[in-house]
Amino acid sequence: MTKANYQGFVQQLQKVFDVQASIALLNWDQETYMPKGGAAQRSRQISTLSAYAHELFTDPAFKSLVRTLNDNLDSLSTSEQVNIKETYKQIARAEKLDAAFVSKRSECISATYQSWIKARAEKNYSIYEQQLQQLIELKKEEADRIGYTDHPYNALLEEFEPGMDCKQLDRIFQGVKDHLNPLLKQILAKAAPDDGFMRRNYDKDKQWDFGIDLLKGMGYDFDRGRQDLSIHPFTTGFGADDIRVTTRVNEHNLASMVWSCIHEGGHALYEQGLPSADYGLPTGKYISLGIHESQSRLWENHVGRSSAYWNHNFKLAQSYFPEQLHDLGAHEFYAACNKIEASPIRTEADELTYHFHVMIRYEIEKELITGNLSTKDAEAYWNEAYKTYLGLNISDPNQGILQDIHWSLGSLGYFPTYSIGSFYAAQFYAAAGQAIEDLELQIAQGDTSQLLSWLQQRIYEQGMHYSAEELAIAITGEPLNYDYFKAYTAKKYGALYDL
Amino acid sequence: MTKANYQGFVQQLQKVFDVQASIALLNWDQETYMPKGGAAQRSRQISTLSAYAHELFTDPAFKSLVRTLNDNLDSLSTSEQVNIKETYKQIARAEKLDAAFVSKRSECISATYQSWIKARAEKNYSIYEQQLQQLIELKKEEADRIGYTDHPYNALLEEFEPGMDCKQLDRIFQGVKDHLNPLLKQILAKAAPDDGFMRRNYDKDKQWDFGIDLLKGMGYDFDRGRQDLSIHPFTTGFGADDIRVTTRVNEHNLASMVWSCIHEGGHALYEQGLPSADYGLPTGKYISLGIHESQSRLWENHVGRSSAYWNHNFKLAQSYFPEQLHDLGAHEFYAACNKIEASPIRTEADELTYHFHVMIRYEIEKELITGNLSTKDAEAYWNEAYKTYLGLNISDPNQGILQDIHWSLGSLGYFPTYSIGSFYAAQFYAAAGQAIEDLELQIAQGDTSQLLSWLQQRIYEQGMHYSAEELAIAITGEPLNYDYFKAYTAKKYGALYDL
Repeated sequence: MTKANYQGFVQQLQKVFDVQASIALLNWDQETYMPKGGAAQRSRQISTLSAYAHELFTDPAFKSLVRTLNDNLDSLSTSEQVNIKETYKQIARAEKLDAAFVSKRSECISATYQSWIKARAEKNYSIYEQQLQQLIELKKEEADRIGYTDHPYNALLEEFEPGMDCKQLDRIFQGVKDHLNPLLKQILAKAAPDDGFMRRNYDKDKQWDFGIDLLKGMGYDFDRGRQDLSIHPFTTGFGADDIRVTTRVNEHNLASMVWSCIHEGGHALYEQGLPSADYGLPTGKYISLGIHESQSRLWENHVGRSSAYWNHNFKLAQSYFPEQLHDLGAHEFYAACNKIEASPIRTEADELTYHFHVMIRYEIEKELITGNLSTKDAEAYWNEAYKTYLGLNISDPNQGILQDIHWSLGSLGYFPTYSIGSFYAAQFYAAAGQAIEDLELQIAQGDTSQLLSWLQQRIYEQGMHYSAEELAIAITGEPLNYDYFKAYTAKKYGALYDL
Repeated sequence: MTKANYQGFVQQLQKVFDVQASIALLNWDQETYMPKGGAAQRSRQISTLSAYAHELFTDPAFKSLVRTLNDNLDSLSTSEQVNIKETYKQIARAEKLDAAFVSKRSECISATYQSWIKARAEKNYSIYEQQLQQLIELKKEEADRIGYTDHPYNALLEEFEPGMDCKQLDRIFQGVKDHLNPLLKQILAKAAPDDGFMRRNYDKDKQWDFGIDLLKGMGYDFDRGRQDLSIHPFTTGFGADDIRVTTRVNEHNLASMVWSCIHEGGHALYEQGLPSADYGLPTGKYISLGIHESQSRLWENHVGRSSAYWNHNFKLAQSYFPEQLHDLGAHEFYAACNKIEASPIRTEADELTYHFHVMIRYEIEKELITGNLSTKDAEAYWNEAYKTYLGLNISDPNQGILQDIHWSLGSLGYFPTYSIGSFYAAQFYAAAGQAIEDLELQIAQGDTSQLLSWLQQRIYEQGMHYSAEELAIAITGEPLNYDYFKAYTAKKYGALYDL
């Protein structure tokens, strides 16, 4: 009986994922190949399928099936239990938001997104501010409906990073400030490495081929994925056997393509490594946004910005761009890609100043959600914070508070996962270094296969068998610990900047 | 009340189309960009969405709404009436096949398709024959359930070419035989034009650009469409503002790319010309496969294989391929692309022998569906017919009865629409020539815009306001008449072959 019920559960959940994967394809196409005429019809197609996915997931018969199975967990295998418990949790969360609220929120998001677009076009935050405040009010209501302990922001965090809360985040970000403030001061007092050569003229087709080589080198499987161009790079997938990345190619910025490629490649390796047979089930899914980001950051920073990596790959870069790179050595390339510099745009920030961008957003989000700060005052808060933390004077709001899409989509609680990802990356990479004795040497010889296998076995193949914290404990013996990032950056930048 | 009902009807029908358009994208991606790993998951995604589209369309509340509206047609506008009547007809047809039958048929199709793949791989028809017979039995049952007058084949024809029946087809194909048999005999007695130069080495990228130029020249709108590569060229769409074509490029066959491009371009012009606001409604849809094909054939043959067209475009071809075409003139190019030659493969046939390919399939289908012929004897029948009609000895079944996918998918009654399309094309093109005085001169000057406008106004923008026969009468004053094709080919080939 329970066996048959479980089969029915699997069927329905995989059906939900069939629809979600179709939505993902509609989105992928929209960002890559769709002619501009297709936009209006595409929105309605996505909206129809989204409603269907929601209908399937919240179907009363399905909910009661999950509830029954959740009451009989003992008769299920470990993996089956993971799938039931996780789905039960998601349903319980979804049930707290009734259809009227969800629809009101979705309309408000649509209006807020439109006003963000308009505000950016006119470089004027005030166009957007009132609409954003309305969305914030709904997010407060959402937090109240979901319920929380200590802080309403915890209810929002839970959506993206289950198990994380403000108390932990505050502690972590205090560590970040204590560590990065003096480190940055030291670094910025030194002469910056020259990275001007990254902005020479690099043929787009050759950049493309170079990027493909880098992805292949990482172990990205082109039989189960592909790369295309899009304005904003992203990773998407339709099951572990078809996981796609996109990149951007700027003729005058080699760095932009290289690290977006490796970053998305990291995300994609995680997805390609999930158990394909568990299609659509929690055991076939990533754990959290922070863990997902840990994989993109691990590959982007710990591998892709390491001296060992360029020890091997600089020759490859030179073979594609002999003219542009003939006067350089691997070390100059390595130094350039680790140049530290305060800059206003988060997505272009280096791996140290990046976390101030996140912290500022985190602080503002927390204040907005408690009502201590109104959106009217948020721009001044933003600009003041950039002055304080990074010494920057922001005058253009497109380079300031209007730069990110997240708030306009109601994604409050999302930004911290970027930093969490970086810190997990440092922690996991340290464990990999313990497990694989000559890891650095292997990378210097262009071989990341042992690293990939280790990640596959320890993380990717586990799906949601662990929570983020459980995974960290299983691999490293302790929960998220900022000290690994601290040690990694102190060592790397100490050497690079001769501190 | 009726107004509100009608709005509800439109919403549901457009929702069905949202799902169908999403399926079309899943298919498009499968044929163009999907990595091979995606195949298994893609099938299930398509199958889930197909079931949903069917569920929405056969929803009892929707059916009863359509029935109510169909009983109150007087209170609706002409366009609204078209939409209700057509949908009512489709529902009535669908209702004759219960869910159990549809599911049995779908399983049988899947098995038959698999055995067709296997038979082709082993070049052995007997592997496939018994499975095909099972599908034929289901098609007989389908015809019986649908109901028909005179001949069970009429029930199948109705799906693809509403209003067409065996009586008309027999009469038309008798005309084809009476006309084409002696014409072919005359032509084949003459020296064939040299088309060897079409198989010189043509750079793929340049072919691609040439094809894009030809599509632009026809008026295909790249802001509302795009071209990609696929093994078998096709046209697909997700609403009139996003209609895509694919083509194939063979380095050693310029003709293959050129006419597949123009053929699919013709299909696409029809779809791009449908009223975009009538998204998903019959008034925003093509009339029948025959009318659709009439547009691909009109552009492919009447425009694209005309002396006037190459009078202009041969210079363009030469500019792309100066080396390959420098020793030729426009007339030699024109003659080569109208070379008549009996050959075993339908999709590679010239515009005259093509109809024997169709006739042979039509004859066999009719005999199979009445049970006068069993699949066991179909191969011998096929080979005998190719000997009789085209003088060909077929020994390889992949060049014979296994060449087309259609039967394996249960698409009996489909082939005749290819010929019907050609004959409508001749009839419509004659009317266009009457309406546009110097049409040939315009084409010779590279200007097909007036032709396109005429087709847009008379055909494309009409959606399903007319049936195929009504459209023919509206435009040409008479129903489908083979004489136009006869006159067109007699004149063209008379001059070309000096008969």
